[in-house]
Amino acid sequence: MPQNRLIGTPVRGLDTPALLIDLDAMERNLQKMADRLAGGGLRLRAHSKTHKSPILARKQMELGAVGVCCQKVSEAEVMVAGGVQDILVSSEVVSPPKLRRLMALARHARLMVVVDDPRGAELLSEAACEAGSGIGVLVDVDVGQGRCGVPPGAPAAEVGKFVDSLPGLDLRGFQAYEGKAQHIDGFEARRKMYEEATARIRETAEGFASAGLSTRVRSGGGTGTWRWDLEAGVLSELQSGSYLFMDAHYCSVGGPEGPVYDDFEPSLFVLTTVVSTPSSDRVVVDGGHKSLSSDSGWPVCKDIEVVYSAGGDEHGILTIPAGYPRPDLGDTLLFQPSHCDTTINLHDRYWGIRGGMSGGVLETVWPVAARGMVQ
Amino acid sequence: MPQNRLIGTPVRGLDTPALLIDLDAMERNLQKMADRLAGGGLRLRAHSKTHKSPILARKQMELGAVGVCCQKVSEAEVMVAGGVQDILVSSEVVSPPKLRRLMALARHARLMVVVDDPRGAELLSEAACEAGSGIGVLVDVDVGQGRCGVPPGAPAAEVGKFVDSLPGLDLRGFQAYEGKAQHIDGFEARRKMYEEATARIRETAEGFASAGLSTRVRSGGGTGTWRWDLEAGVLSELQSGSYLFMDAHYCSVGGPEGPVYDDFEPSLFVLTTVVSTPSSDRVVVDGGHKSLSSDSGWPVCKDIEVVYSAGGDEHGILTIPAGYPRPDLGDTLLFQPSHCDTTINLHDRYWGIRGGMSGGVLETVWPVAARGMVQ
Repeated sequence: MPQNRLIGTPVRGLDTPALLIDLDAMERNLQKMADRLAGGGLRLRAHSKTHKSPILARKQMELGAVGVCCQKVSEAEVMVAGGVQDILVSSEVVSPPKLRRLMALARHARLMVVVDDPRGAELLSEAACEAGSGIGVLVDVDVGQGRCGVPPGAPAAEVGKFVDSLPGLDLRGFQAYEGKAQHIDGFEARRKMYEEATARIRETAEGFASAGLSTRVRSGGGTGTWRWDLEAGVLSELQSGSYLFMDAHYCSVGGPEGPVYDDFEPSLFVLTTVVSTPSSDRVVVDGGHKSLSSDSGWPVCKDIEVVYSAGGDEHGILTIPAGYPRPDLGDTLLFQPSHCDTTINLHDRYWGIRGGMSGGVLETVWPVAARGMVQ
Repeated sequence: MPQNRLIGTPVRGLDTPALLIDLDAMERNLQKMADRLAGGGLRLRAHSKTHKSPILARKQMELGAVGVCCQKVSEAEVMVAGGVQDILVSSEVVSPPKLRRLMALARHARLMVVVDDPRGAELLSEAACEAGSGIGVLVDVDVGQGRCGVPPGAPAAEVGKFVDSLPGLDLRGFQAYEGKAQHIDGFEARRKMYEEATARIRETAEGFASAGLSTRVRSGGGTGTWRWDLEAGVLSELQSGSYLFMDAHYCSVGGPEGPVYDDFEPSLFVLTTVVSTPSSDRVVVDGGHKSLSSDSGWPVCKDIEVVYSAGGDEHGILTIPAGYPRPDLGDTLLFQPSHCDTTINLHDRYWGIRGGMSGGVLETVWPVAARGMVQ
């Protein structure tokens, strides 16, 4: 990468906007998750839709992760090309071109895919047979998210039986992602939703067992519930991805009882530059919708007290509260993204910083290799 | 491009999510704008932050546009590499690496850049002199947007005089973009805000003229005000970019009196596939935050009556109103983005369709060449 010529540059001397990793903080997050899961029945299968980087996926696997999840076939192709050999495609795949690609990839890596529909299972089976390959399958169960998935318990087991009867498909268990519970504000409210979801997961595991179906893989959970997932002992694989970086949004979902999920440190930031200082209480930075996603709210400035407001595609407008100093033209300002996944997907590379966000230096440049892989 | 092997494929046979251009509709938009501006005093300098494609920029210039605007130096680099020779960088540039790149580029193309600060002007001048090059400069004036820019009238002329005194800088006039007026709901409310902004533009032009400064370039306007910009005769260059594709958001800013801006047709869409049909009133498509931006609201389904809700990074959840048929697994559904600029920036390529979104075929594949160019 030509950007490697900049290695050793002080962090605040990098051009902006730039997607920065605090390597020290990220490595502590990696190690903390690995330590907490070590030796237990819950293994990490980190969701690579967060980082989109085979380099980071391999770091997770070196510390014990069994593999990664991918949301898209094209993400899985990038992961396999980058040396990751064990992948769960955690979204339903139904279109003929993607089915062909999935089954071709299954000849070169250990793949699983989810299904939530008998017709979807037939499509997978036909594609596997046509390609002369086989693939692991999990039944996708809706345990409260209200997105994809079959109802828990007996209906899930029915789909499982059908999958089990089809050639080319190796039923391994089910996926039960409690997507809604991840983002509920308030410790007790989140625990209540989590427990309702977990009851549905148990019901599904029992349904599968009664039908004589494999429950070897029970995949779900995330950064918003992982401690409970660890205690409950219901899942076998944890899909947590955001723990690596921690979104401002995740850190803030505390509700009235205060923060729930402070196990991990923020380690992902976007560095910006003040490009305009039009008034005593307003400055403008060079990061807008195209470098900081807004689907989960505004980014949080880590350097000074400001109120961020949208300034279009390429600008952020910062209002300085009364009594606070105004930064100067050319100053850099660091932001924590509200949502890491969608912010990372806007950038072509990570700038890895060693020694902190104030005095650190550039140690490595990593491509966001699966950025834009939406198919 | 390897994707060119798919040329001739029926539109609904393309894999998804895919960013589609309705070429017939887009060409009508191109021609309509060219016809309306032909022979008058207002020339088009289309904002290329919308399309990020030198191919499309050249099509605009073949029909009379004087060049393009770029929001970032890296966008300008892509435009020059793609054969576009006349560029206004419409954002302030203050960081040393970007100043070096800007001045190096100015040796290979006709460049202008905006400035809103005497210190910013000094930085530009120093960089121009150091590179042994020169650059055109516009004073960036805040005519109501509340983002960057100096106040209109005398303060703007003061900055203009200072720019005019510095070596390496060729003062050409000013930029006055009425950003807020573009998006105001309601015909009369928008016209009122537009007229206030236009009074400030006139005041600035008079201030410049009194000070003996060039007003040759008076740049501003957009797809939300262009008809009035044409009538008013105050601007010399129109920055409209979205007219090419028309955002759902632009089409909808009608307010109580109905749509204001229906001059242009929607010509940009994202094709998705139904990947899950979990209940009689709900289906899930394979397009979420990473293929359809949400900073200006949800996308609009063009095929059937549905209510879109967020389904995370890679899914959209569609609720089917009572009495409407539910699409089947594998069906394609077409969406109009709420905001074209940020949606295009999520994709690597355009799929250009000839013959309409139902029965048309793939005619061309164009890279979104300046996607991700945030620096």
